[in-house]
Amino acid sequence: MPFVDIRVIAGAFTPEEKRQLVEKVSEAVIAIEGEALRPSTHVLITETPSGAWAIGGKALTAEDVRVKRAGGAL
Amino acid sequence: MPFVDIRVIAGAFTPEEKRQLVEKVSEAVIAIEGEALRPSTHVLITETPSGAWAIGGKALTAEDVRVKRAGGAL
Amino acid sequence: MPFVDIRVIAGAFTPEEKRQLVEKVSEAVIAIEGEALRPSTHVLITETPSGAWAIGGKALTAEDVRVKRAGGAL
Amino acid sequence: MPFVDIRVIAGAFTPEEKRQLVEKVSEAVIAIEGEALRPSTHVLITETPSGAWAIGGKALTAEDVRVKRAGGAL
Amino acid sequence: MPFVDIRVIAGAFTPEEKRQLVEKVSEAVIAIEGEALRPSTHVLITETPSGAWAIGGKALTAEDVRVKRAGGAL
Amino acid sequence: MPFVDIRVIAGAFTPEEKRQLVEKVSEAVIAIEGEALRPSTHVLITETPSGAWAIGGKALTAEDVRVKRAGGAL
Repeated sequence: MPFVDIRVIAGAFTPEEKRQLVEKVSEAVIAIEGEALRPSTHVLITETPSGAWAIGGKALTAEDVRVKRAGGAL
Repeated sequence: MPFVDIRVIAGAFTPEEKRQLVEKVSEAVIAIEGEALRPSTHVLITETPSGAWAIGGKALTAEDVRVKRAGGAL
Repeated sequence: MPFVDIRVIAGAFTPEEKRQLVEKVSEAVIAIEGEALRPSTHVLITETPSGAWAIGGKALTAEDVRVKRAGGAL
Repeated sequence: MPFVDIRVIAGAFTPEEKRQLVEKVSEAVIAIEGEALRPSTHVLITETPSGAWAIGGKALTAEDVRVKRAGGAL
Repeated sequence: MPFVDIRVIAGAFTPEEKRQLVEKVSEAVIAIEGEALRPSTHVLITETPSGAWAIGGKALTAEDVRVKRAGGAL
Repeated sequence: MPFVDIRVIAGAFTPEEKRQLVEKVSEAVIAIEGEALRPSTHVLITETPSGAWAIGGKALTAEDVRVKRAGGAL
């Protein structure tokens, strides 16, 4: 405790970005809760396959997200 | 996307700390994914009642966590 | 199976709308999977307190959502 | 918001059925909440490997579910 | 790790039964994984309000579950 | 109902241990709730890829967990 689940579309982030997400979110939480809770602070990434996550009824692919991140539209 | 669920014991954090958890985790994620995904980045807190979350079989109260945060033992 | 969790901000929907969400989502799933799975199809609503769910770093209240639903901005 | 997680056993549904689950559940939710929330309505499918989901202590395979859907017993 | 979330309808179980659910599930998991993981084994109960959880499209109340547990029908 | 989600790191447990986790947790829950709820008691395992689950900011691999289970340190 705390337990933080970061849900993303598989392929939308590189392995290094996922490593950073886990690390930076862990440190952001620990900076607020204090070092005493570090040993019980769990942060993980849960990936949903490309095409299995819809926003507004439109199923998104990892490619859609990459285009969006590069400035395109979802 | 992403969707980040921060699970904590109710009462273990003040309202201001919970506000900071949501803000700082949001900004940590957006700093990595980029501003383009800000509008679809969801971060929320889910609270479990005091006494309903056990670590190693020992049910924790909000008071247990506050004592731990202040330097005591869980 | 299936198990469907509908996560919403508490106060953003009326009791009747929540009842409909559970019923209509149940029927939408059963219409695709077939009546044989009706007895094992679980659909539930999980509410997050107003102010504990942020989009893009901005914490939303139930009132924010009601304004948005009525045509205002988030 | 809303965020809807549809949990199923992997292999129990065809790719087309999964596409329909996401679309029909999205439209069922949007029909109740209103078009204004379409852009923030997330619906996704989370698959559990065949054999890793038990009902009543009996682990189910995708084949068990297909037999059940075709009129057999679980 | 492991993290075990026990989802139930609020009011379907007494406080003592909920305490036992957390304890017995914790001990069942630790008996398999071994004592070394006890300090990182999290088990919690998440309650869904009575009437917000449907099976087969029928919303269940805590009373429905109590009747069923006593030998009645759901 | 109940619905029990057992979240573990992929590779930290053998297939037989995972089968036992689902069975023993199911029986532990049913022993408390009673046989009447057996048909609606769902227990499943959700696996997080090795390296995608951090405790205290340190990402864990399946190997880390196996070493810990054998008496080493996390």
